[in-house]
Amino acid sequence: MKIAVLGTGMVGEAISTKLVQLGHEVMMGSRTANNEKAAAWIGKAGKGASQGTFADAARHGEIAFNCTAGVASVEALKAAGADNLKGKVLLDLSNPLDFSKGMPPRVLIGPDDSLGEQLQRALPDTRVVKTLNTVNAMAMVDPSRIASGDHHMFLAGNDASAKGRVTEILRGWFGWKHVLDLGDITGARALEAYLPLWLRLWGALQTPDFSIKVVKNG
Amino acid sequence: MKIAVLGTGMVGEAISTKLVQLGHEVMMGSRTANNEKAAAWIGKAGKGASQGTFADAARHGEIAFNCTAGVASVEALKAAGADNLKGKVLLDLSNPLDFSKGMPPRVLIGPDDSLGEQLQRALPDTRVVKTLNTVNAMAMVDPSRIASGDHHMFLAGNDASAKGRVTEILRGWFGWKHVLDLGDITGARALEAYLPLWLRLWGALQTPDFSIKVVKNG
Repeated sequence: MKIAVLGTGMVGEAISTKLVQLGHEVMMGSRTANNEKAAAWIGKAGKGASQGTFADAARHGEIAFNCTAGVASVEALKAAGADNLKGKVLLDLSNPLDFSKGMPPRVLIGPDDSLGEQLQRALPDTRVVKTLNTVNAMAMVDPSRIASGDHHMFLAGNDASAKGRVTEILRGWFGWKHVLDLGDITGARALEAYLPLWLRLWGALQTPDFSIKVVKNG
Repeated sequence: MKIAVLGTGMVGEAISTKLVQLGHEVMMGSRTANNEKAAAWIGKAGKGASQGTFADAARHGEIAFNCTAGVASVEALKAAGADNLKGKVLLDLSNPLDFSKGMPPRVLIGPDDSLGEQLQRALPDTRVVKTLNTVNAMAMVDPSRIASGDHHMFLAGNDASAKGRVTEILRGWFGWKHVLDLGDITGARALEAYLPLWLRLWGALQTPDFSIKVVKNG
């Protein structure tokens, strides 16, 4: 199918590459129609890969992945255009990381809002589903690289059918075995607020290539 | 040994009960020296159990557990007295949960501070270690009730020897198999920011009796 991937960073490239490998027609979107990183990716990815502006990509895609940097996501999605994304499912993979003061990044979390909700407010007719932001780019599209895939992915969004579609994508395309629905889009607060722990675990484990498995009594 | 447990709620009672079972002399501290919940607990717990004010308990304990409600913790620890806790290890189990507007509680998280750090600033000569706030009270002192204990506890604090002592307590007294050191006390931001995800997982799993296992590639 035709898919928009917004963002040309590590996450955008990992998602786009996997989607092309699965046979989809992927347009990578960025601020300009002639992005160097997107061009380099097209050279490697081959058939099915193209690029355009955020708006070009949003028009192209039947579904869209937001892989832009968190601090730039709202602006990028406004450039993509609410009309171009109307009625479509948008998987929001972003994290509110502020690298302006160096490493580690400051994580812009709070009790009452999240990037996922900001995107849903900016795109009221788009079905935003927050997901995949809790693992590194490689693990997003190949969870089996960690503990044979025996760990959890989460999602949150207001539209039940959109969450059903995203669950199919996570399971069928990327190979996630365990997907937990955390409720409406305000669950994006919880998924983004996990990032400070994720960053500390990276430090403790000396690798970003990890995930968490939820275990319960009974 | 002589131990202070500050707080008479579910967490304070679970910790105190376990410590008395292990043979320790536990004084439960609260605002008053004649707290009804503490008295009820002493009746059940028997030998080794006593109660007093926050200050009485802080004087009594060679180490102390902060099990007070997060929004009241700084005030409670000031009442306990910086002098009474000087040089001692304080395990901070609190979470910044605001129940004033009903359920679910608002979690007072942010990028630049945490309860653990507020307590360390209020008690500069006490060795504060943030831990145990990521699971329910029963699992804190009996992690084997979940997945045979195959999941993780975390800690954060500025003093390496204090973290070593707390790791011994978690492993030796409570039975934790996996303890991860997340660095200095600013790691409390990460542990407290996990709470919104914890609350959502409770909703999704329909039980608070769960934990997370960290799994990595390799």
